[in-house]
Amino acid sequence: MKRTGYIGELNGTHLGQQVTLQGWAGRRRDLGGLIFIELRDRSGVVQVEVEPDSPAFADADTVRSEDVLEVQGLFRERPEGQRKGGLADYEVVASGVTVLSRAKTPPFELDKGGEVAEDIRLKYRYLDLRRPEMTRNLLLRSKAVAAVTAFLDRAGFVNVETPMLTKSTPEGARDFLVPSRLNPGEFYALPQSPQLFKQLLMIAGVDRYYQLARCFRDEDLRADRQPDFTQLDMEMSFVTQDDVLEVQEQLLAHVFREVLGEELPLPFPRLSYHEAMDRYGSDKPDLRFDHAFVDVTDLFAGGGFQAFASAGAVKVLAAPELTRKQIDELERAAKQNGAKGLAWLRREGEGFTGGISKFVTPEVAAALLERTGVAAGGTLLFAAGEWKAAVTALGAVRLALRDLFDLAAGGPKFHVSWVVDFPQLEWDDQTGRWTYMHHPFTAPHPEDVALFGTERQGEIRAQAYDLVLNGYEVGGGSIRIHDPAVQAQMFAAIGFSEEQAREQFGFFMDALGYGTPPHGGIAWGFDRLVMVMAGASSIREVIAFPKNNRGADLMAQAPAPVSPAQLAEVGVQVVAGEE
Amino acid sequence: MKRTGYIGELNGTHLGQQVTLQGWAGRRRDLGGLIFIELRDRSGVVQVEVEPDSPAFADADTVRSEDVLEVQGLFRERPEGQRKGGLADYEVVASGVTVLSRAKTPPFELDKGGEVAEDIRLKYRYLDLRRPEMTRNLLLRSKAVAAVTAFLDRAGFVNVETPMLTKSTPEGARDFLVPSRLNPGEFYALPQSPQLFKQLLMIAGVDRYYQLARCFRDEDLRADRQPDFTQLDMEMSFVTQDDVLEVQEQLLAHVFREVLGEELPLPFPRLSYHEAMDRYGSDKPDLRFDHAFVDVTDLFAGGGFQAFASAGAVKVLAAPELTRKQIDELERAAKQNGAKGLAWLRREGEGFTGGISKFVTPEVAAALLERTGVAAGGTLLFAAGEWKAAVTALGAVRLALRDLFDLAAGGPKFHVSWVVDFPQLEWDDQTGRWTYMHHPFTAPHPEDVALFGTERQGEIRAQAYDLVLNGYEVGGGSIRIHDPAVQAQMFAAIGFSEEQAREQFGFFMDALGYGTPPHGGIAWGFDRLVMVMAGASSIREVIAFPKNNRGADLMAQAPAPVSPAQLAEVGVQVVAGEE
Repeated sequence: MKRTGYIGELNGTHLGQQVTLQGWAGRRRDLGGLIFIELRDRSGVVQVEVEPDSPAFADADTVRSEDVLEVQGLFRERPEGQRKGGLADYEVVASGVTVLSRAKTPPFELDKGGEVAEDIRLKYRYLDLRRPEMTRNLLLRSKAVAAVTAFLDRAGFVNVETPMLTKSTPEGARDFLVPSRLNPGEFYALPQSPQLFKQLLMIAGVDRYYQLARCFRDEDLRADRQPDFTQLDMEMSFVTQDDVLEVQEQLLAHVFREVLGEELPLPFPRLSYHEAMDRYGSDKPDLRFDHAFVDVTDLFAGGGFQAFASAGAVKVLAAPELTRKQIDELERAAKQNGAKGLAWLRREGEGFTGGISKFVTPEVAAALLERTGVAAGGTLLFAAGEWKAAVTALGAVRLALRDLFDLAAGGPKFHVSWVVDFPQLEWDDQTGRWTYMHHPFTAPHPEDVALFGTERQGEIRAQAYDLVLNGYEVGGGSIRIHDPAVQAQMFAAIGFSEEQAREQFGFFMDALGYGTPPHGGIAWGFDRLVMVMAGASSIREVIAFPKNNRGADLMAQAPAPVSPAQLAEVGVQVVAGEE
Repeated sequence: MKRTGYIGELNGTHLGQQVTLQGWAGRRRDLGGLIFIELRDRSGVVQVEVEPDSPAFADADTVRSEDVLEVQGLFRERPEGQRKGGLADYEVVASGVTVLSRAKTPPFELDKGGEVAEDIRLKYRYLDLRRPEMTRNLLLRSKAVAAVTAFLDRAGFVNVETPMLTKSTPEGARDFLVPSRLNPGEFYALPQSPQLFKQLLMIAGVDRYYQLARCFRDEDLRADRQPDFTQLDMEMSFVTQDDVLEVQEQLLAHVFREVLGEELPLPFPRLSYHEAMDRYGSDKPDLRFDHAFVDVTDLFAGGGFQAFASAGAVKVLAAPELTRKQIDELERAAKQNGAKGLAWLRREGEGFTGGISKFVTPEVAAALLERTGVAAGGTLLFAAGEWKAAVTALGAVRLALRDLFDLAAGGPKFHVSWVVDFPQLEWDDQTGRWTYMHHPFTAPHPEDVALFGTERQGEIRAQAYDLVLNGYEVGGGSIRIHDPAVQAQMFAAIGFSEEQAREQFGFFMDALGYGTPPHGGIAWGFDRLVMVMAGASSIREVIAFPKNNRGADLMAQAPAPVSPAQLAEVGVQVVAGEE
């Protein structure tokens, strides 16, 4: 029998009709001689009632949790007192119940999936995905894919697949290697990103490119990383940074509208990297709430409080009234981010008590009050030191404060912004030289190019931009260098000889010389974006079959040993390790 | 400056306007003091005329092939005698020419790209892709991706990404292996297809799934294979074969309409595997032309021509008048496909001459004439022997005949059909036992299940189907087994013990027992489909960066040796090979 439709499609217009539904048995209750079965498909759940004299009763009486059923019956309203809105207003009085497939007893109760150990959920992922939260995440992700594709296709972007068996690309993470059987002793690398290929597509004249690209980085897996992940990768020719940002804003607004019915206010605010760090202590500030830092360097300069008197920067964050325990917790966040401690003051009347109050003169107190506007009983939290270190530590305190007081709840559900004007170069203390902040193909601001090779090259601003959503970096990109002369300056700035550059990126350097249009692009961390859209707490919740933090697929049991014959064919052998 | 639009978007409505265009310089001609430059972007080519007194002249005079230009000028009609239709009716009289980027002399002339050695084209793929034919192929493929996505999203299919770092799947080809650094001595396999994962998604209740899936098979590369390729992968729950085929027909018709503006007549004709083989000698018959075989086994049975008298099958194909040389060529095709030779007859009046005519009695001649309707002067081509061998050889002759006389040109541009009712099991002469024809999860026809384990199990028909376009298999799929008992019968039929099955597919067998809906699906060979749609002769023409037949990317120079340190990290070493 063909089903009437998905369960979630049933509504008042079906009342009084015979319906055919297919799905999984959820909870079953036997009550007053009747059998009640929750019938579930990906779209919803409806109650099936089987009366003792129903021809379906004998079959229904064999039903156990997670059996696959086909149910025929009358669609009707539930008794008045039992209606709970939506589908729960209705029920199906079964005239036929067919068990299409029996289920063994599941290893965990699906109702309690959220509380079950993640290892069990991952091992039986096909059961875990039956839980409505998980089904909803998969459907949301799929809708996002369709929305992105439709928008970019209409906007003239060309979907191009780039190679999966390729060579190291310039992200600088560790590659996954694939031995080549046809070329013994040689290896492919799985792509860390399609960066070079998308730039080559611009050189090829594709003009606008996109791809939902699987990317691979063999890193130690921190909490929320996967060895492979998905980028929405885009590149455009003959554009400025403004052109790229404008298309991106339209695209993201389209996706939110289509998938969530949410309108994102356009344009997104733009903060420079310096502003984001200076005010929020992060290059991906959560701007659902403000709590910006106030600069008070001048108030303490040359004063009696040694730690502040000679600091490059003294920043203050105004907080509500805090208990000692809360201050300790915030101090931990500061310390984990490089601070020695967390100086604080509590406002009392028109002055301050506690913390560093003995160093606060009445004049400084008055200025602090005026600049911060801290409420009576409220707390001021300080970070001082070298500018970047100070703002970074206080940025961590700001996020800890958010979590403590649920500050984000008061703001918009989604806040999107751009962070722009990243530094082109970063000083690397470990190697004692300059390195690139994004990647070596990022273009500098034209007016800053002259600073290459000077003492001030640390001030060069890149034409690079990050897309920030609720405190997550969900996208990043740049205008690229298309002029081989500038590319040479960039390599020189990071101490790359021409030979080194050629060895690492030879074919790409070659290509640059054959007529490269001005171009730029961006890549979205698609898993993370969908995670935030779904309100999930981990990207594993929006990936159908993720790996655990040992890189293992607990369901398919991968990775696994392979036979010596298989290894011999691809010309490698395992090196006996120190177990 | 912002460009007015793509070159291909210019038309009569722009006449008399100042336009700004960006693109690559094609051919340049200097004529009568004027400079003519062909300006090209992905959408088209327009002629730029630079007059001697133009402020653009000095810049234009520096332009060489493949430089990147921005051109400002007046869009006007070309002189009357020079209009060639479309964009060639127009030209731009330049007031400004800016060289945005210089190009070295290209290693081959783009105009002659089709004739250039493929190795050179692949090495400089970014130049090769600038050729309008290649650009067109990329755009066509992209449109197909968008059309597929839009259709399937509307039809309730859920886009799900399945793992790229996984375990061997049941296709039985050789895996690409990826050593796991976090699990020394263990390996991931790159997926040969998402077969098991898409079935697991059905068990998970996703109900309808699709994915443009990258798949990997480490096979020796024949002419038109790639180590990685793209499948449009789909699966549906609670469906019959008819349900799957109907959705597929709608989908393919949508893609052809959106991408090519072609209407495919629906429904597609369905041939059984037996019918396709018996009439056309192929399970993917090219039906743009008919030339079906005629069975004449009975005419020769027990007769004087030994080779035919006791043959299981004698089939005949009616051809036009053929020269001896053409017959030789067709015979070669027959021999390459297992035949000992190619018997033939030429019609002369109401009888036959040549070939095997001395074995043809007047009665047989009359019957041959009647059954084949061969024209005067026409040729009959025979194959005889065991049925499958005979039809296979004659199938090859039929295709050789097609190529000789361009028979397909007389038919529709695209002919799509289904081949259904494939055998469930195939006898494997090498191993001396039955094996699966598709894969071990394909469901048999319900009415044939009783034949499992009997002498007649070779007659079991699978609920399997192939989608055939112009003689190419562009898709294949089946209804899957969802009943563990039938799965056990299937494994027994192919001589798999329960332990063997468990070892190879354990986690999947487990999953089957937790409530599996009836389900089935299909996968399209997306590269091949796009190739046929584009009228290209190789899938390499519709893949942006393909490998050559040694599995090498000549542009990126992959695969390549890696450092001992990199290998040590992933715990493998190269086995010294016999060079």
